[in-house]
Amino acid sequence: MSTTPPISKALAEFVVRTRWEDIPEAVRHEAKRSLVNFFACALAGCRDPALVTAGKVFARFSSSQECTIIGRSERTDLLHAAALNAMAANVFDYDDTHLPTIIHPTAPVAPALFALAETRPMLGEDLLLAFILGVEVECRLGNAISPWHYQRGWHITSTCGVFGAAAAVAKAMGLDATRTLWALGNASAQTSGLVETLGTASKSMGVGNAASNGLLSAMLAAEGFEGPPQPLEGARGFLRVMGDKPDFDGIVTGLGETWEIQKNTYKPYPCGVVLNPVIEACLELQKTPGLDVNAIERIEITGHPLLRERTDRPPPKSGREAQVSARHAVAVSLVRGKAGLDEFSDACVTEPALRALGDGLAFVDDGSYSVEGASVTLRMRDGQTRSRRIQAARGGPEKPLSDDDLAQKLATLAQWGRSGCVPTPLSNALWKLDESNSAGLTMSLTHSSK
Amino acid sequence: MSTTPPISKALAEFVVRTRWEDIPEAVRHEAKRSLVNFFACALAGCRDPALVTAGKVFARFSSSQECTIIGRSERTDLLHAAALNAMAANVFDYDDTHLPTIIHPTAPVAPALFALAETRPMLGEDLLLAFILGVEVECRLGNAISPWHYQRGWHITSTCGVFGAAAAVAKAMGLDATRTLWALGNASAQTSGLVETLGTASKSMGVGNAASNGLLSAMLAAEGFEGPPQPLEGARGFLRVMGDKPDFDGIVTGLGETWEIQKNTYKPYPCGVVLNPVIEACLELQKTPGLDVNAIERIEITGHPLLRERTDRPPPKSGREAQVSARHAVAVSLVRGKAGLDEFSDACVTEPALRALGDGLAFVDDGSYSVEGASVTLRMRDGQTRSRRIQAARGGPEKPLSDDDLAQKLATLAQWGRSGCVPTPLSNALWKLDESNSAGLTMSLTHSSK
Repeated sequence: MSTTPPISKALAEFVVRTRWEDIPEAVRHEAKRSLVNFFACALAGCRDPALVTAGKVFARFSSSQECTIIGRSERTDLLHAAALNAMAANVFDYDDTHLPTIIHPTAPVAPALFALAETRPMLGEDLLLAFILGVEVECRLGNAISPWHYQRGWHITSTCGVFGAAAAVAKAMGLDATRTLWALGNASAQTSGLVETLGTASKSMGVGNAASNGLLSAMLAAEGFEGPPQPLEGARGFLRVMGDKPDFDGIVTGLGETWEIQKNTYKPYPCGVVLNPVIEACLELQKTPGLDVNAIERIEITGHPLLRERTDRPPPKSGREAQVSARHAVAVSLVRGKAGLDEFSDACVTEPALRALGDGLAFVDDGSYSVEGASVTLRMRDGQTRSRRIQAARGGPEKPLSDDDLAQKLATLAQWGRSGCVPTPLSNALWKLDESNSAGLTMSLTHSSK
Repeated sequence: MSTTPPISKALAEFVVRTRWEDIPEAVRHEAKRSLVNFFACALAGCRDPALVTAGKVFARFSSSQECTIIGRSERTDLLHAAALNAMAANVFDYDDTHLPTIIHPTAPVAPALFALAETRPMLGEDLLLAFILGVEVECRLGNAISPWHYQRGWHITSTCGVFGAAAAVAKAMGLDATRTLWALGNASAQTSGLVETLGTASKSMGVGNAASNGLLSAMLAAEGFEGPPQPLEGARGFLRVMGDKPDFDGIVTGLGETWEIQKNTYKPYPCGVVLNPVIEACLELQKTPGLDVNAIERIEITGHPLLRERTDRPPPKSGREAQVSARHAVAVSLVRGKAGLDEFSDACVTEPALRALGDGLAFVDDGSYSVEGASVTLRMRDGQTRSRRIQAARGGPEKPLSDDDLAQKLATLAQWGRSGCVPTPLSNALWKLDESNSAGLTMSLTHSSK
């Protein structure tokens, strides 16, 4: 234990010393891409029933109208805005994925910063810098305890997210290294979130808390509310309690040289990323001339064993279960030729035609496939087969969504979520956020002005 | 896994069906004792620097003045009152101890209920019933994962406390079994608190959150914010994620027949309970005629090995470190003849005379001692010895503090904490709480009316 590097201190000092000039252009741009995707998802989620209920209860405890609830005309205070916007961004799990950890890194961090930016002057580049550093802290902590941490049952987006939000807000507030360390300490007392809650409204509490408690952690630290010297690496600190053989060295190796946000990916479809190639293959098959889905006898999916392990499930009973169901993804893609939020809704899973088609599904494990690829073969009643292999699906690291794809995702989801947001001014503002004199003004573009 | 009893459902149903008439008189009385001790500790802690800082930050986010901050003239909203009063009660670790788990059971549960009682009509007996049931849920969960959970690094008062507060508030709000189960689910997304933070302000965030997040969990559930069916016993639920081989059966065995609050104890001194017999022996020795502390050459403490393991530490640098330091406890008891909060303050630990006396301390392990007993032997420079053995210290299960002791503790701490509270009306109101038509009015007795 005596050789453990002083991780908490090292991360705090890294956050404090890093300047906008230190951030490579590609990293800056990836941060903007993450934010475009974030607003897209938050606009989609802003009227989800869980959000409506939370918003109603939170409204009783709102101390001011300083901050924007994305996509809504109602306003609330700093902490509740951070929580609600984080919940909205993540409620469909349609937000970004840091591949090494499957953290959704932006949901807990960005809302804390944008809410703060509505309460005090903040340059766009300062928000971006704080965001990049928050994501760096969040994902490096996640790396150190993956995959054990999530497998044990921790909702890693929430548990690591609170540290990301605390670090980001500490940076945006200009805290010194001691107070940034305290912010991490205050966050360590509040790290929570269980995988058992996925698929229920409860999940959103973990994600919302990560944003608002991270914000509060830094605000308390700014006023002198002090934490322990080693909240992360200490004998009863975060990494040892919530990790198994944590990779201490990895957290501090290459700080400022490599950037975790460059491992961020964005989903083309609102479901588990392992389903991406399956959906893509089915959408292509659906477009082939003369396909009659009623003549399909059997469907074979060939892919990495992980595909089967994650997505071979009984018929889904809800939209959220459908998001990790291969049988649903295959059926809906073949029948509707689409795979958007409407195709993974509660209403959609009850359709008998989709269920019948899904019944004919079989998995073939093939370890030679990467998790980004898959084959789908349709065996027709007349004995013919139709087959499509996807080597690397859109949205994965080999074929990331383009900037235009992300702007289109924002436009589609802004409309889907009935946000009233006019999408182009918002995405344009985000692409030029580093030139903004007032990052907080971005929030006014997320809802109709009425 | 198929034999796991449906714990979450069973606890929810137990909470819903249990009536005041079902609670034995001894259990009712122990609940009142716990509350007297709670208010004593909260009155002592109400102006601690951590509380002052938290109060300052929280005040920015206070949505109303509905609720009392114990011992203060300032008021705040429901959630912030619950958090601040929980923090105050626990900040010195002078509050109650559920012996099987070392949970401080009252701090997260009572403040949530008293704050709620200021916002809606609540009978005293209804508050007491909800309190007893919340403590029951909290401590049974703690039993099932002890001692591994705390040893791993979880601050069990916080991690289990959020469930206690959620269950208690669900009961007080009259939620049905489904919604009570959801309250537990919402709590499961928010269970947090690390032992690494003990001795710092950060610890108080965990305890405060347990109260306010438990309250919020039930309020959300009341509005339909739903959780998973098995937040506790599920494959990725609380007990398996934060426990090692949890005792599932123990949680539901004897529900309504045995009562965890009857295992609650109250501290006569503001420090680790294993130090109780040591302090008592030293206070008695200090009173023996002719003792000259400057003539002590060496001090021997004989006790259960746990006493040494927990309290044999380097000279403390703060009041909080002093709370678990045998050398400090011995020195201050012998020199001052007192062992109150002033004797475990930051100022006190720097006194050279105390430090010098502590340097002469030696431990003798003796497995034949219970943890409630200890011997202290003073070896004087002239060769004489003075010795005192305590079989069972005050405050332990064999010699619990009396009702009068508890009322005196409240009086002493109300003054110590500069609360302005007139103690007798408050303790009298608590002893008769089951006769009250308005539990919330109790809170007005905790501070000066000015």
